[in-house]
Amino acid sequence: MPIIEMHMLEGRTTEQKNRVAAAVTEAVIASLGVRPESVRILITEHHADEFYVAGIPPKKRAEAPPLANGAQEHTA
Amino acid sequence: MPIIEMHMLEGRTTEQKNRVAAAVTEAVIASLGVRPESVRILITEHHADEFYVAGIPPKKRAEAPPLANGAQEHTA
Amino acid sequence: MPIIEMHMLEGRTTEQKNRVAAAVTEAVIASLGVRPESVRILITEHHADEFYVAGIPPKKRAEAPPLANGAQEHTA
Amino acid sequence: MPIIEMHMLEGRTTEQKNRVAAAVTEAVIASLGVRPESVRILITEHHADEFYVAGIPPKKRAEAPPLANGAQEHTA
Amino acid sequence: MPIIEMHMLEGRTTEQKNRVAAAVTEAVIASLGVRPESVRILITEHHADEFYVAGIPPKKRAEAPPLANGAQEHTA
Amino acid sequence: MPIIEMHMLEGRTTEQKNRVAAAVTEAVIASLGVRPESVRILITEHHADEFYVAGIPPKKRAEAPPLANGAQEHTA
Repeated sequence: MPIIEMHMLEGRTTEQKNRVAAAVTEAVIASLGVRPESVRILITEHHADEFYVAGIPPKKRAEAPPLANGAQEHTA
Repeated sequence: MPIIEMHMLEGRTTEQKNRVAAAVTEAVIASLGVRPESVRILITEHHADEFYVAGIPPKKRAEAPPLANGAQEHTA
Repeated sequence: MPIIEMHMLEGRTTEQKNRVAAAVTEAVIASLGVRPESVRILITEHHADEFYVAGIPPKKRAEAPPLANGAQEHTA
Repeated sequence: MPIIEMHMLEGRTTEQKNRVAAAVTEAVIASLGVRPESVRILITEHHADEFYVAGIPPKKRAEAPPLANGAQEHTA
Repeated sequence: MPIIEMHMLEGRTTEQKNRVAAAVTEAVIASLGVRPESVRILITEHHADEFYVAGIPPKKRAEAPPLANGAQEHTA
Repeated sequence: MPIIEMHMLEGRTTEQKNRVAAAVTEAVIASLGVRPESVRILITEHHADEFYVAGIPPKKRAEAPPLANGAQEHTA
């Protein structure tokens, strides 16, 4: 422990995955005071048609009108 | 919340996934009274050799004698 | 299959859990055409300090200023 | 997305959970360039008899002879 | 790896959990040829109202008429 | 129940998956006294860049200096 499962949209490079895994591991070690060896991360990538918010896949959401605050949404 | 992980056998079309995600989201909203935006669904598909009932993969089960009640089994 | 894991904030009654499980099962059967017996649902409840959006637990979010669109947030 | 499930041994304070969730969220935002709102974290705590390494629960491991390199093991 | 998550109905003793974790670890080591240290097991227990087959919780199922083949069902 | 999720590095043959699923099912039945039909196993395979120990993927670990005790590490 801790064992961490990360679900994200597919399309990241190996480099990006390496980077986020290293950063999350660092965050867990610093916050919980555990041994680096005890932190294990599993990434599962999901296709665009395997993730839904409010029953709608992200692709269709991207075509919806922009958010009230003007921010661009990145749900990947 | 709620966050829902659905595991199913691979082979569904995007349309089928869209439909089941919409229907499940609808069911959760109606039953729990939560905001649509708060419902997130993650689908993970599994190959035929990644799902086992009683230690047997579904394909081999299909070749087994029919169920006592004559029903055809769909474990997909 | 399908096997469905539902994560939700703790505090629901057994009746509410029964209702959402029945409704989700119904939605899955109708959308995917699977046998009722093949649908299994696992609910995991999480304490208020075990769920975070943008790194913030829902309780603190409730004390934050209201959403732009005036909607009240229910993330339970 | 990303949706992150963290499994850890029980016994952390709410403050520790808040801290690790904030740090992990920060790490994910910085590494993947996603919107803070899109990062959701679910923590699941496990009793001492619900986590095993090499088939042995951590408590019994603690009573085992020290590691070769003299490091103290923290699997929490 | 392998990392194994076991979901079961609550009510097992610590001894039973230790036994099943040891047996599963042994089975994985023998079948896949991995190092014992690499096998990690996480158990999550679920209340009776957190597990559903065909939309029905196990308790209600126990009150249903016996199975066609006369076998008694243990879904724990 | 029990529902078992197994995460492993990709590259196993169907035969190996069949063998480990059968062995784990056997172990669970013998240890918990449950009906074979009640045991369901889901396997999820992860690419080499989807699994991290101490923030490092297994491939890079293989290139690291050998373990103190001379054992060769298999984290697959």
